[in-house]
Amino acid sequence: MPARENTTDLFRSLQDTICSALEKEDGKSRFTEDNWRREDGGGGRSRILQNGAVIEKGGVNFSAVYGAIPEFLKKESDDIIPDNSQFFATGISIVLHPVSPMVPIIHMNLRYFETHPKIKNQKSKMLNWFGGGIDLTPHYIDADDAHFFHRSLKEVCDKFDKDYYPEFKKWADDYFFIPHRNEARGIGGVFFDKLKADEHHSLEQRFDFVKAVGNAFIPIYSHLIRKNGSKPYSEKQKQWQLLRRGRYVEFNLVYDKGTRFGLETNGRTESILMSLPGTASWWYDYIPEKGGEEEKTQELLKKGILWDF
Amino acid sequence: MPARENTTDLFRSLQDTICSALEKEDGKSRFTEDNWRREDGGGGRSRILQNGAVIEKGGVNFSAVYGAIPEFLKKESDDIIPDNSQFFATGISIVLHPVSPMVPIIHMNLRYFETHPKIKNQKSKMLNWFGGGIDLTPHYIDADDAHFFHRSLKEVCDKFDKDYYPEFKKWADDYFFIPHRNEARGIGGVFFDKLKADEHHSLEQRFDFVKAVGNAFIPIYSHLIRKNGSKPYSEKQKQWQLLRRGRYVEFNLVYDKGTRFGLETNGRTESILMSLPGTASWWYDYIPEKGGEEEKTQELLKKGILWDF
Repeated sequence: MPARENTTDLFRSLQDTICSALEKEDGKSRFTEDNWRREDGGGGRSRILQNGAVIEKGGVNFSAVYGAIPEFLKKESDDIIPDNSQFFATGISIVLHPVSPMVPIIHMNLRYFETHPKIKNQKSKMLNWFGGGIDLTPHYIDADDAHFFHRSLKEVCDKFDKDYYPEFKKWADDYFFIPHRNEARGIGGVFFDKLKADEHHSLEQRFDFVKAVGNAFIPIYSHLIRKNGSKPYSEKQKQWQLLRRGRYVEFNLVYDKGTRFGLETNGRTESILMSLPGTASWWYDYIPEKGGEEEKTQELLKKGILWDF
Repeated sequence: MPARENTTDLFRSLQDTICSALEKEDGKSRFTEDNWRREDGGGGRSRILQNGAVIEKGGVNFSAVYGAIPEFLKKESDDIIPDNSQFFATGISIVLHPVSPMVPIIHMNLRYFETHPKIKNQKSKMLNWFGGGIDLTPHYIDADDAHFFHRSLKEVCDKFDKDYYPEFKKWADDYFFIPHRNEARGIGGVFFDKLKADEHHSLEQRFDFVKAVGNAFIPIYSHLIRKNGSKPYSEKQKQWQLLRRGRYVEFNLVYDKGTRFGLETNGRTESILMSLPGTASWWYDYIPEKGGEEEKTQELLKKGILWDF
């Protein structure tokens, strides 16, 4: 399989499909596009929608970059990657911050990576894999929505490997966690990395799985928008949303690997930080009202909750 | 000099003086206090003022902690610190986010650190030093205010050592810089660390210098509040303030050493993150209007500007 070309095409066309579906859902704002080039090879297509009817600020970014392998990528890998290797990476990243606190924040990232040692007179051994995931950050956790979200992801996973969902769900729980708050970022989802061809899965099967995850995005988020988007909300609920967005900022700037590597390695700042909300708040030691919906949500921001009941 | 006791007393009383002066300037809100204890030794007094007439959100924190030296403190030091050392650290940290975009954000930190190797039957050699600084982040840079701020700091410095101001001003420029924005956080100020007793300065002189910096805080910030606090401002200027606060959040969560160490080493999260503003904004690729005050400010967010003309 020409994985590089197929995956690049997949992610580029996913970006098109998803942006056009989101514009329909939003009904007011359109995505604006920035094409950018990377000095050392490749580039990307950043698309941002702001001040929509449904989406306050969201980005759907595609990139395909290549060149000499940066130091941090070598360090990140458990594999031994020779010094003078070349790499290729393509990915699609989405973060959507809705206007309404009743609609959850959603994040998806899908990526493909390959590296070729460049050793003279030696046959080049290629290393390549897929990674990614989808996770949901409701401002108010609704058990039905959480169930729907996790069941949808489980269905996608189960078509490929019964071990995928439990393994990738746990991975998301562990990854999307804010240690200094002892709090999950949201209700998790699936997170996976280093999906290589192995004795149980061909690279084609890994590709098909990643494609299926990508195709699940719009049906899932459209449902959540349509179900919750027209619910009324109060000023107090809007304030709570801003506080939850503050936690999202904390996670992304303090822990998210993609964000930190991007910033530290001279990535395109505006594309990386599209994940940040339009507005966020911090108030000292805010404690939700006893028995209120905010407290209920905070109590559900834990690892290990099985939402696929 | 009993440096530990004297410095602890100094910082505690500075906290009292500064809080009471700020309450007078604000005229509306009062500081609330949280006393906290550190499990492994010591504790602190966090004081927060929110929703004031002048200050939207501000913290003035005092702490004095001790115990077995944490791994990260050893790594941070150029000095060789034996494994089983004890440490003592006391500090005062201030960040004030004003309501008005015409009033600058201010930050001060003063700290004292000592460590004693605990080696059986061996005379304990104490290492100790002072660190700290003051820096200013105007939402709109006013040359007169910048001049006043830097001249005030230079006057304090010059009383002790003519080399202090140029050295510590450069240190602030280098420290309060946001590489991924290629932008200074504000107009800098002074930043210093590892001020030990040496052939030119006794520890008493270092202490007196730190005390003089602490005493300069209220005269400086009171002047800036009184000069700018009642200036009218527009919704557009308020929006710009929120964007500048976004940059403040980026600096503090991505680069600030105190913040990152605090979060990574199980510090008191609410005290550490008192530095974050009440509200902050991010808009994709915001470019200020040509020739406007916002663009002028952005062009002055550079290292190496000599404001003490």
